[in-house]
Amino acid sequence: MIDYILTTYDWVPEFPRGYVRDLRVRWALEEAGLSYHVETTPFDDRGTQHFAHQPFGQVPWLTDGTQTIFESGAILLYLGERNERLMPSEAARRAQCLSWTIAALNSIEVVVLPYFMLKMSNDAGDAPFAQTMTGWLASRLAHLEIVLASQDWLAGEFSIADILMADALRLVERLGGLEIYPVCRAYVARTTARPAFRKAHADQMAHFAKGDQARA
Amino acid sequence: MIDYILTTYDWVPEFPRGYVRDLRVRWALEEAGLSYHVETTPFDDRGTQHFAHQPFGQVPWLTDGTQTIFESGAILLYLGERNERLMPSEAARRAQCLSWTIAALNSIEVVVLPYFMLKMSNDAGDAPFAQTMTGWLASRLAHLEIVLASQDWLAGEFSIADILMADALRLVERLGGLEIYPVCRAYVARTTARPAFRKAHADQMAHFAKGDQARA
Repeated sequence: MIDYILTTYDWVPEFPRGYVRDLRVRWALEEAGLSYHVETTPFDDRGTQHFAHQPFGQVPWLTDGTQTIFESGAILLYLGERNERLMPSEAARRAQCLSWTIAALNSIEVVVLPYFMLKMSNDAGDAPFAQTMTGWLASRLAHLEIVLASQDWLAGEFSIADILMADALRLVERLGGLEIYPVCRAYVARTTARPAFRKAHADQMAHFAKGDQARA
Repeated sequence: MIDYILTTYDWVPEFPRGYVRDLRVRWALEEAGLSYHVETTPFDDRGTQHFAHQPFGQVPWLTDGTQTIFESGAILLYLGERNERLMPSEAARRAQCLSWTIAALNSIEVVVLPYFMLKMSNDAGDAPFAQTMTGWLASRLAHLEIVLASQDWLAGEFSIADILMADALRLVERLGGLEIYPVCRAYVARTTARPAFRKAHADQMAHFAKGDQARA
């Protein structure tokens, strides 16, 4: 049995814990019941070795024998190609899963991430750009609300598309931004209630807590 | 031979022309020499039929027999799985192509798009968030500058990763933002000099010009 190696930081500050992107990969590996272990790369001192695996100095990356894959979205597609529990193999469902996987990354997260950063900044909420961002996010969530009203998961069965979509939406939920989107909110709730998410989340929290001890 | 159907708007205003995302799909289809034709959906009046194919009311979508795929990134992956000229089939190159495809969408475009929208807004450039965005983009471009200094293309040969990366960077170039990144700039220049890009771009411009005539 292949033992995948998932590499993440040895430590991160409190704030991003529970949201570092190795979570998405842990979650997928847990959903599929795949065997893996976690290795670390220094958060503070990102050297040549790190950039050789992840050209932006981010995490995670996955090692599969002699292959290295970076970008959590790419890792999930890579695993999905190898595991039916992560991506359906039937042609129509697969096309749907692929479409929604990229929609999560490039139509939802592309709005959520700057929105989150904007909220974390000290900009006035009535600045023109803040209004643009708020309207942009509202439009996307309103469409998603319609889609999810009639289906539990984005591509028939639960898939990597749901991992990426739910994890992007968690950031909006963290800001209280899903209150007027009950369908999206219920989707995040049922997604994060899955045992694989709970284990992945608990494991990430424990991992970084161990990092605290090593630094103490 | 399969005739793919690419659906885009019947018309768009002047400003987005040359950047509407059907360009990426046209480009990929031209690179691979695949047979396709273009159909249209109304820009002004986006009805049920549109949302059934593209749940956010965007374009493009691709029809392949009974399959529909939306999100230009997903369409490129779908075509790449079927064509060696778009995505290498050798395992290591394929993992690299997959990683860079998602990096273009979720590490570069996720910064470029809000940066572009910010620049289009009337916000003061010294607002905290504007500074955050500028620093975020600068960091990503600096890393990319290093990567592209030693290689022409992101995954060995030209691939869908280059289509997505170059098209994201074109938006920065449009704002004059690549002037201090000569390597990225040269990458955009050699990418957009490819016959397939030039044909895709000319075809998109001609398509929307025809839309002008229909509205006149």
